[in-house]
Amino acid sequence: MAITRILEHKWFHNFIIAVIIFNGIILGYQTSKGLSESTIRLLDVLDMACLAIFVIEIVMKLYAYRLSFFKDGWNNFDFIIVAIALVPTTGGLAILRAFRIFRVLRLVTTVDSIRRVVSGMLLAIPGVGSVGVLLVIVFYIGAVICTTLFGDTFPDWFGNIGQSMYTLFQVMTLESWSMGIVRPVMEVFPYAWIFFIPFITVTTFTVLNLFIGIIVDAMATIKEQDQIKKAKESDVDEHYVIQKDIAALREHLDILIKDVKR
Amino acid sequence: MAITRILEHKWFHNFIIAVIIFNGIILGYQTSKGLSESTIRLLDVLDMACLAIFVIEIVMKLYAYRLSFFKDGWNNFDFIIVAIALVPTTGGLAILRAFRIFRVLRLVTTVDSIRRVVSGMLLAIPGVGSVGVLLVIVFYIGAVICTTLFGDTFPDWFGNIGQSMYTLFQVMTLESWSMGIVRPVMEVFPYAWIFFIPFITVTTFTVLNLFIGIIVDAMATIKEQDQIKKAKESDVDEHYVIQKDIAALREHLDILIKDVKR
Amino acid sequence: MAITRILEHKWFHNFIIAVIIFNGIILGYQTSKGLSESTIRLLDVLDMACLAIFVIEIVMKLYAYRLSFFKDGWNNFDFIIVAIALVPTTGGLAILRAFRIFRVLRLVTTVDSIRRVVSGMLLAIPGVGSVGVLLVIVFYIGAVICTTLFGDTFPDWFGNIGQSMYTLFQVMTLESWSMGIVRPVMEVFPYAWIFFIPFITVTTFTVLNLFIGIIVDAMATIKEQDQIKKAKESDVDEHYVIQKDIAALREHLDILIKDVKR
Amino acid sequence: MAITRILEHKWFHNFIIAVIIFNGIILGYQTSKGLSESTIRLLDVLDMACLAIFVIEIVMKLYAYRLSFFKDGWNNFDFIIVAIALVPTTGGLAILRAFRIFRVLRLVTTVDSIRRVVSGMLLAIPGVGSVGVLLVIVFYIGAVICTTLFGDTFPDWFGNIGQSMYTLFQVMTLESWSMGIVRPVMEVFPYAWIFFIPFITVTTFTVLNLFIGIIVDAMATIKEQDQIKKAKESDVDEHYVIQKDIAALREHLDILIKDVKR
Repeated sequence: MAITRILEHKWFHNFIIAVIIFNGIILGYQTSKGLSESTIRLLDVLDMACLAIFVIEIVMKLYAYRLSFFKDGWNNFDFIIVAIALVPTTGGLAILRAFRIFRVLRLVTTVDSIRRVVSGMLLAIPGVGSVGVLLVIVFYIGAVICTTLFGDTFPDWFGNIGQSMYTLFQVMTLESWSMGIVRPVMEVFPYAWIFFIPFITVTTFTVLNLFIGIIVDAMATIKEQDQIKKAKESDVDEHYVIQKDIAALREHLDILIKDVKR
Repeated sequence: MAITRILEHKWFHNFIIAVIIFNGIILGYQTSKGLSESTIRLLDVLDMACLAIFVIEIVMKLYAYRLSFFKDGWNNFDFIIVAIALVPTTGGLAILRAFRIFRVLRLVTTVDSIRRVVSGMLLAIPGVGSVGVLLVIVFYIGAVICTTLFGDTFPDWFGNIGQSMYTLFQVMTLESWSMGIVRPVMEVFPYAWIFFIPFITVTTFTVLNLFIGIIVDAMATIKEQDQIKKAKESDVDEHYVIQKDIAALREHLDILIKDVKR
Repeated sequence: MAITRILEHKWFHNFIIAVIIFNGIILGYQTSKGLSESTIRLLDVLDMACLAIFVIEIVMKLYAYRLSFFKDGWNNFDFIIVAIALVPTTGGLAILRAFRIFRVLRLVTTVDSIRRVVSGMLLAIPGVGSVGVLLVIVFYIGAVICTTLFGDTFPDWFGNIGQSMYTLFQVMTLESWSMGIVRPVMEVFPYAWIFFIPFITVTTFTVLNLFIGIIVDAMATIKEQDQIKKAKESDVDEHYVIQKDIAALREHLDILIKDVKR
Repeated sequence: MAITRILEHKWFHNFIIAVIIFNGIILGYQTSKGLSESTIRLLDVLDMACLAIFVIEIVMKLYAYRLSFFKDGWNNFDFIIVAIALVPTTGGLAILRAFRIFRVLRLVTTVDSIRRVVSGMLLAIPGVGSVGVLLVIVFYIGAVICTTLFGDTFPDWFGNIGQSMYTLFQVMTLESWSMGIVRPVMEVFPYAWIFFIPFITVTTFTVLNLFIGIIVDAMATIKEQDQIKKAKESDVDEHYVIQKDIAALREHLDILIKDVKR
């Protein structure tokens, strides 16, 4: 089909990448202060033009690939990004205007090397699912304990479960955990460190395990591919030569036996 | 036994998991402020119900497995968690109420994949025991030095060994170590950095070694399993074929020799 | 050529290293306060002398190697460092005086072991290019969103795209992200954590992937070299012996066959 | 010799470990405030007793092993620790009293498993020497630039090379680098980030490389030991069997040839 040929042409691909980058620059430029009325209007028009190109691209793809378009997760992502851009941004949805910049994420789906990186990172997530669930359990338990014990005295930090989880996330990242949070808490509850030091140790250790899991997975994958390659190349090579040698030997022997028997 | 069949049935297992999660939500909800009298009573009743289910479960398991129940470390953990919940929470033990949320940790013992993760993390601990002892030695030495040198001038941070260890733990996590602690100390003792910079370097390097030890252990375990698998599959395969070839050759030769000798 | 022999002589090499270190010490000493007029003049003269030696060295190398001098990237680096030092440092370029200290970087190009380390680090960069581009995209999107949403309320932190990127870099390094930035922002925009917590998670995870990429690359390189070495040594050895054995066997058989046929 | 037998007896070894720990506890207890006169005197006596035991131990070792005592680096370490303790701690050397606690470090030399860990960590240091030198160069260049540019405006942070290096160390550990140091600097020098952001990136990346170097080294060592073990076990096994098979075959053939020739 002519459309498919256009869609898969290298130039069209590069053109779309250029439009995405151009659109990103425009959206960034719109955040500048003190732009003249005419500049604002120009930027809006250019943004509309970029969006129009994206819509046309999606429509072309929908026409070319029909429903199989939605079978690729990345296409769905593109579709949603562009669809959101078409929602009117007046009234309560005005905040969506700020999210137009997510269109730049289309670079991830369009540039192959970045897509591969993101795919790799997404693939690493399920492998650490159990550790993630464990972390959520530890956080929830910590949040309930903090809210019960410190909630009344420090309502800003531990007023409810949500605030406690936020504060514990901050503590886990080690940001101002002592001078900012635990030392003030310890002035009222001198034994608060009995909770916080183990909490920091356990969560840091768990996050470390999460990271080790990912590293070990990555290494194992590479080793596997390596062994498959090696098994194909070297082993087959070497062993095959020896087996062929032995087979040749046997043929020699067969001839010999025939000769002797004669 | 009928009880064993119930206990090991998938539905019973999932039911217990659901009760644990439900109990966790109730205990979390109880921390909300401004709950009506009736809600508080309802939540208490529901919590009691969950606890009752746990007690029944443990009693059933005790009846089914008898003393072999206590041979599994995880069962002991479950038993303690539930037993603590039965201790009256009045008087000086009121703080125990806050620890009811630890019941959610039963998820760790009940959900297989999380249990495996925690087992793995617990197994990693003894392997790094020596590094841990080394870290304790370094901390103790640091705490005694800090208390002796800076204790009188900065009683809040280095007043006694306990406070010094807490402050040094904070310094090791790099939280406000300079702006919060060392710069003020250096205004009185200008050479304090001679202690703190090496302390940070040594403890960070030691913790790094602790982490590397865990990573290398994890890799070694995987490699071992790999080699066992490989040894079983490929090596045996390849070498076995060659050895069988040679054995066949020898049989041929034996026939030949017999023929010649005849 | 005589000049080449001088340039490549071990003593000349060590002499240049000594001059670089000496020049570094002088430049460091010049930053001291309260130096007497005569000391300042002496230091300036010594600095000039060092620079003169570098210029002579470069001229000698240019004479000896001619244009092939510029084929080595490290030589170009040396050339630029010395050339910049010759630019007059008066007027608007006075700041260049502060950069004379970059001459110490010539140690990197001159001492072999350091040069190898830097080469290794530079080689690791392209391998993580895609992850780097991904990080830039995430930062740009984050900066545009922050500038749009928080720019008017917190002009110091999110006033324009540049300031937002700086603040987000600070947030990614976890420095005062909560107490310093996000908590104040959350007092005006209570849901700001919906942006910042995922931002921290995603960028930390991406940087981790960048690091894992480098580690895995380094391991893969070492493994490759290992396998080449192993392939040369052990495999060839063992398999070669067996193949030679089989070849000898075949020769035996050939003799036997000839004997029988006779 | 009788003394050697005592020195190398398990009970003597454990006794010394007990004395070290006991001495550590005493030195820690001495930091307590409000001790009665008699307690202080008792602790001093006990400390003297411990020291006396260490001196006797060293003298015994010197008598038993003579000069070969000093061939072991750990023995030298023990000797210095004990020798320092004998220096009178009056006058300007009063600060040495605080360093008596370093005697606890004798645990490192006495307990085998900890000694192995420390040996491993010390062995890892030379392997990363070049990266360490590189880091020193980067810090020195950074300190000279900071002192020149910001020294006059921020004398507390960048007043001289030493202060600049301390501040840059703090910046490298990411502690308050932005809110505490760079943002105030940027209020006077708006382009200061051009120096600090690359400085953070380069030093963090270099330290990462230092860590990766240690990890990769540790892995390589383990792999080497692994391959030696594997080479001894499996390869020799498998290949040896095949070679023996072929040798047996050849013998068979030799017999056959003799038979035929007859």
